[in-house]
Amino acid sequence: MLIRTPGSLEEITANHSFGGWHRRYRHYSETLRCEMVFAVYLPPQAARAKVPALYWLSGLTCTDENFMQKAGAMRVAAELGMAIVAPDTSPRGAAVPGDPDGAWDFGHGAGFYLNATQPPWAENYRMHDYVVFELPELIEASLPINASRGLSGHSMGGHGALVCALRNPGRYRSLSALAPICHALASPWGEKAFSRYLGADRTAWKAWDACELIADASERLPLLVDQGEADAFLVEQLQPETLRQACAAVAHPLRLRVHPAYDHSYYFIASFIDDHLRHHAAALLT
Amino acid sequence: MLIRTPGSLEEITANHSFGGWHRRYRHYSETLRCEMVFAVYLPPQAARAKVPALYWLSGLTCTDENFMQKAGAMRVAAELGMAIVAPDTSPRGAAVPGDPDGAWDFGHGAGFYLNATQPPWAENYRMHDYVVFELPELIEASLPINASRGLSGHSMGGHGALVCALRNPGRYRSLSALAPICHALASPWGEKAFSRYLGADRTAWKAWDACELIADASERLPLLVDQGEADAFLVEQLQPETLRQACAAVAHPLRLRVHPAYDHSYYFIASFIDDHLRHHAAALLT
Repeated sequence: MLIRTPGSLEEITANHSFGGWHRRYRHYSETLRCEMVFAVYLPPQAARAKVPALYWLSGLTCTDENFMQKAGAMRVAAELGMAIVAPDTSPRGAAVPGDPDGAWDFGHGAGFYLNATQPPWAENYRMHDYVVFELPELIEASLPINASRGLSGHSMGGHGALVCALRNPGRYRSLSALAPICHALASPWGEKAFSRYLGADRTAWKAWDACELIADASERLPLLVDQGEADAFLVEQLQPETLRQACAAVAHPLRLRVHPAYDHSYYFIASFIDDHLRHHAAALLT
Repeated sequence: MLIRTPGSLEEITANHSFGGWHRRYRHYSETLRCEMVFAVYLPPQAARAKVPALYWLSGLTCTDENFMQKAGAMRVAAELGMAIVAPDTSPRGAAVPGDPDGAWDFGHGAGFYLNATQPPWAENYRMHDYVVFELPELIEASLPINASRGLSGHSMGGHGALVCALRNPGRYRSLSALAPICHALASPWGEKAFSRYLGADRTAWKAWDACELIADASERLPLLVDQGEADAFLVEQLQPETLRQACAAVAHPLRLRVHPAYDHSYYFIASFIDDHLRHHAAALLT
């Protein structure tokens, strides 16, 4: 059943977790023109007052569920009194066009957190506006979450976190990423996605590339970035050295930690997520 | 490819996690007469010396993966220097008979940690002997894990943990359970499984029922049991009060904690798993 009432949240599931609540909601997104599901973790403190939120952007193929189930983030979020919001990674549903070849790195599960300009993608694929504007406004109006926002993500979602925060100074108070696609316009995943969502003109791609945006950023949120050295996507897709150079060129504060032996999996995320939660809490809770 | 060499482990995956390694192995089980997959978390300390292990028995429908991905247990296991071993929940494969109706509460994913006596189940369904004998012996001969064993589990796996430890005094040094099926012979899940695996004679069922075994136990390992009060299976399937009464009748040490609002999910397990790891470490690491 399609719920087209803007701002109406339908609760799908609720699980008590670390003294707080993990809840999943369905709603109709005006921005994406389809039904969307997102998840939120509300720490125990949210029962008494509005709390800040870390928005988490997941990687290719994920939904709202992967991070909530696998990252082990709720323990420290409960301790700190910080909510976590996990949106889906693309518009969804039979009416939303997906990859014509059924590939996993474009279309459904691969929205790349941008606003598409090319048909047929421009109709639904506006994940930037959804995660930066529509979703926080809906959440802050409906749930015990205030407008003190942090942003983080993994892989495609790390790219999304960097890009969404860098494009919107003042919108987030803290920023971090795990194994982000640092220079999407020069990575095979990014080239495939950008050429379709944004068209063949590569100059238009720069507005959605973290390294390009860093150069002109008017806000210098300190970046915490973790990367596994055994990540199979490190060299070709993620390119953390491009981010290091882009930050160094403009003295953008970056703490890039490269960890031997860690791969691209949620085991890597879980191993370091507590540091990210505390990085965000330092900005969101003071 | 079927590997029939007893004691031969084929590594399937390896992920660095919290300074240690999550590894999945395939091997041929002589006990179950099929190929099996299990997972192990080796903490950083296992690089230098053999470490104790907590054996975790999962619930209905699970494989080796659910606990490792969702419980958030590796952080404290790494801190304590304790391995975690997660077997599958039944024999597997096309040659192993499953539920004739394709149900999820019998057959594949539902071995109930017993030794079946009835055809056609008796041929493969010998999960008790597999998790108590074959698997630990294989692991202790092949991996940096010693014979200091703890046992825990969830739901059907909580039943399995209680029954396997109570049937084998001296084999485990610590025991706990989350939301266990406490009195399987009087629960619908247990009645369905026992009547098929063990036959119609209910007297034979008592040897696989935690409450019955508690009464005659020669060893009194202190039990830590957590249960969610909002667990949908609490009254009909799990019946923790039967365990409380069985323990009280023979002064078996039991710490039964009933937590308001928690359900049967891995969010419940994650919320309390650290306490279980520390409960086991107190026995295994001293």
